[in-house]
Amino acid sequence: MELKKTTDFIHDLYGTDFVPLSVPVFIGNEKKYLNECIDTTFVSSVGKFVDRFEADMEKYTNSSRAVVCVSGTNALHMSLMLAGVERGDEVLTQALTFIATCNALSYIGAYPVFLDVDRDTMGLSPVAVKKWLSNNSEMKNGVCYNKRTGRRVKACVPMHTFGHPVHLDELIAVLKEYNIELVEDAAESIGSYYKGKHTGTFGRVGAISFNGNKTITTGGGGMMLFNDEELGAYAKHITTQAKIPHRWEFKHDHIGYNYRMPNINAALGCAQLEHIEEYVESKRETAKIYEDFFKNIPDVEFFTEPENCRSNYWLNVVILKNKDSQQEFLQYTNDNGVMTRPIWELMTRLPMFEHCEHDELENTVWFADRVVNIPSSVRIK
Amino acid sequence: MELKKTTDFIHDLYGTDFVPLSVPVFIGNEKKYLNECIDTTFVSSVGKFVDRFEADMEKYTNSSRAVVCVSGTNALHMSLMLAGVERGDEVLTQALTFIATCNALSYIGAYPVFLDVDRDTMGLSPVAVKKWLSNNSEMKNGVCYNKRTGRRVKACVPMHTFGHPVHLDELIAVLKEYNIELVEDAAESIGSYYKGKHTGTFGRVGAISFNGNKTITTGGGGMMLFNDEELGAYAKHITTQAKIPHRWEFKHDHIGYNYRMPNINAALGCAQLEHIEEYVESKRETAKIYEDFFKNIPDVEFFTEPENCRSNYWLNVVILKNKDSQQEFLQYTNDNGVMTRPIWELMTRLPMFEHCEHDELENTVWFADRVVNIPSSVRIK
Repeated sequence: MELKKTTDFIHDLYGTDFVPLSVPVFIGNEKKYLNECIDTTFVSSVGKFVDRFEADMEKYTNSSRAVVCVSGTNALHMSLMLAGVERGDEVLTQALTFIATCNALSYIGAYPVFLDVDRDTMGLSPVAVKKWLSNNSEMKNGVCYNKRTGRRVKACVPMHTFGHPVHLDELIAVLKEYNIELVEDAAESIGSYYKGKHTGTFGRVGAISFNGNKTITTGGGGMMLFNDEELGAYAKHITTQAKIPHRWEFKHDHIGYNYRMPNINAALGCAQLEHIEEYVESKRETAKIYEDFFKNIPDVEFFTEPENCRSNYWLNVVILKNKDSQQEFLQYTNDNGVMTRPIWELMTRLPMFEHCEHDELENTVWFADRVVNIPSSVRIK
Repeated sequence: MELKKTTDFIHDLYGTDFVPLSVPVFIGNEKKYLNECIDTTFVSSVGKFVDRFEADMEKYTNSSRAVVCVSGTNALHMSLMLAGVERGDEVLTQALTFIATCNALSYIGAYPVFLDVDRDTMGLSPVAVKKWLSNNSEMKNGVCYNKRTGRRVKACVPMHTFGHPVHLDELIAVLKEYNIELVEDAAESIGSYYKGKHTGTFGRVGAISFNGNKTITTGGGGMMLFNDEELGAYAKHITTQAKIPHRWEFKHDHIGYNYRMPNINAALGCAQLEHIEEYVESKRETAKIYEDFFKNIPDVEFFTEPENCRSNYWLNVVILKNKDSQQEFLQYTNDNGVMTRPIWELMTRLPMFEHCEHDELENTVWFADRVVNIPSSVRIK
């Protein structure tokens, strides 16, 4: 695997002794906007940056309504609820995902069903979904049920792994047939497009993350994207404590959530979003450099974006030969100043989810034994 | 009520044409610390201000462990969970509270039981709690059950209304008798002490809020206070996604929550906390000035702190003669540049909670018809 050559190359690429996996870059108005929050005293959940960040994100993603949240996890929690997922429902998703996807489901009391991913996207496979549904589900009055458990199959949450979009057209076609809601976990894919359309805007609702390790950051935060303006307005209402507007009265009409993003975090988001295209271009350029480099490294394959997509290459991926190579690569790079990590432990291997229903997960396991993420930060000083 | 005299007085006191109810004051290191976050790129959930804010709060409140959260609501949600409240349990609390108390309960699927408040604290009455328990509960194997519903009565959440501590000694004595956990909703009472001890440190866990309208702010945020270090460490674990520490592996051992406070919000908190004693002193001075002023205003009574307490006077309170006077006061002040508001709509009058069990709520209703909050911001420029 030419490990020394690889770490030397990555050190040169980033020009630092220690190369982190993914850290934010601040080259714009971050300080200016933060200081403005202090000067105006608008630091909390009411403030012009909150409104502007939502408006800017609507424009950037071409969605009808964008609603901020305190994290990607909580955006996903609300998204599932807004898509109608209820306690005891089942939700189709991938085992190859970050824990947030399943945590969000669990808050509602829904059950994940883990299905396989595609080899060219690392995300939920429409073929696996179709196969599982045709073998395991039955329709009653237009509603899909799991034949074995009797539970309603209400939604499907594909995750655009490391920013690479799943096969959305094919997935949407299957879900339509079974009347299942699409909720996109677009936590990692801001700036990623499928056939020219921004990820997170294909289903009933999509959830974005702005955690510190993401392509742009608000410190911590998330956003929901809607095509349905009315649903978006309702999302804003319930994530801001469901207060009925009044000059002085404090009345509420629903169980509400306090998932309000403070103005200082939105200020950071506005400043970051002003540079997103530069960031994504820088990340794509880095990916191209890696692709060329790894062509000449035996037994290491660089993972490239699926067809018809523009990926943000949030975290770059190399595929090693097997689990031993993967462990060797991880150990060497981390011992030599280059931060790398394996893909997340599969959900089906965690104590909370090991008893959940799943298919053969053939590609999932194949990836779990081989994927390593390599440094991916934006290279703009 | 001499409404013109009152608004003139408040305008003079704050020296502005429009006097808001409660806005933050930034006189210290807020900008410096925020800019430091940008310079170091540590804006997210890992960062020195997160650790420092927790340590500083432990020192300030004299608790063994303080754990940050994204909001007071979510701190309370976790607090209830950590106190062992489960789906279907009942929790004793007050109807005279902000909606967050009941929202937090609802996330777990617990049921509130609304009991009366005391006239001298505006918070949950130990007498009302004792009365309700002796009439409605039974003990089985050391566990308290509601005789009528059969549900376990697991916890009690008093709220220190507007910063005034409830009668903690008496409440603790009752709860001990029935083996019920005390979880303090100290959202409004940072800087408030009961018999020399900081509110939020008397029960299994206490929840603080740093929302923009609070005595000190992090933009949005909260904190849990623990005397039990082990429980505090577990709280940190589950609110930070329950990840098992490892150099590169991503494994989790529980359903975790992403309630991590970003470093930029903690930075604001550290700067604010450096001045908390000045803030509280300023607020107490304002309360004294109000107290003296309203002595000479007929039919308006200024509410003062309970005995043996130091209250932060988060929001100052006047008690009007009746509901008509209350509405007249609200209308006049808000029409004349002085922001005021009534106490929150009683929980028992909201559609989500109107069917919940409650006692006679005599004092509760008395307050609801009479309380008005008047401007209370820190008066330091």
